[in-house]
Amino acid sequence: MVKLIAMYKKPQDTARFDDIYFNQHAPLAAQMPGLRRTEISRVTGTLRGEDEYYLIASLYFDDAAAMKESMASDESRAASRTLRDIGAEVSMLTADVEEL
Amino acid sequence: MVKLIAMYKKPQDTARFDDIYFNQHAPLAAQMPGLRRTEISRVTGTLRGEDEYYLIASLYFDDAAAMKESMASDESRAASRTLRDIGAEVSMLTADVEEL
Repeated sequence: MVKLIAMYKKPQDTARFDDIYFNQHAPLAAQMPGLRRTEISRVTGTLRGEDEYYLIASLYFDDAAAMKESMASDESRAASRTLRDIGAEVSMLTADVEEL
Repeated sequence: MVKLIAMYKKPQDTARFDDIYFNQHAPLAAQMPGLRRTEISRVTGTLRGEDEYYLIASLYFDDAAAMKESMASDESRAASRTLRDIGAEVSMLTADVEEL
């Protein structure tokens, strides 16, 4: 299993972020082909390091090829466009996932 | 569900990191009371933002009280001690988790 991790830093306007994220972005991202599941983490505290993150989304795919294909899809591009006005810096990582 | 997220930046010596993380840290962390599951993400690429992370661990608990209690345990302290020589900067966040 692999995942795409989108880490959003704290927006100035959290109400606006939440509105765009949950009402525009998430419904489009949910249509990405090959997507197995989506986990949303709302950051509640920073115990160590810089206190900068607001929300982290993990999108799971079967393998790297499926993830790459999905990210090149029209659905992915439509979802990405909604981030333009979301008002938060975002980092995007890919990762191999295993359960310990 | 809640989780503790430990985000490790790229170590200078990845072999040493992996040895300490998987042979010393992870077995102790696995004994933390109330821990429901542990997911390890090995970062394979950075698509956006700074290319700084190496490994991200997510430790899941039933709720914030269980997580707090677990982090105050002897098992948690023993696991933390192994990080002293791991040679990587770590950020630790807490988050509320939901599936979309």
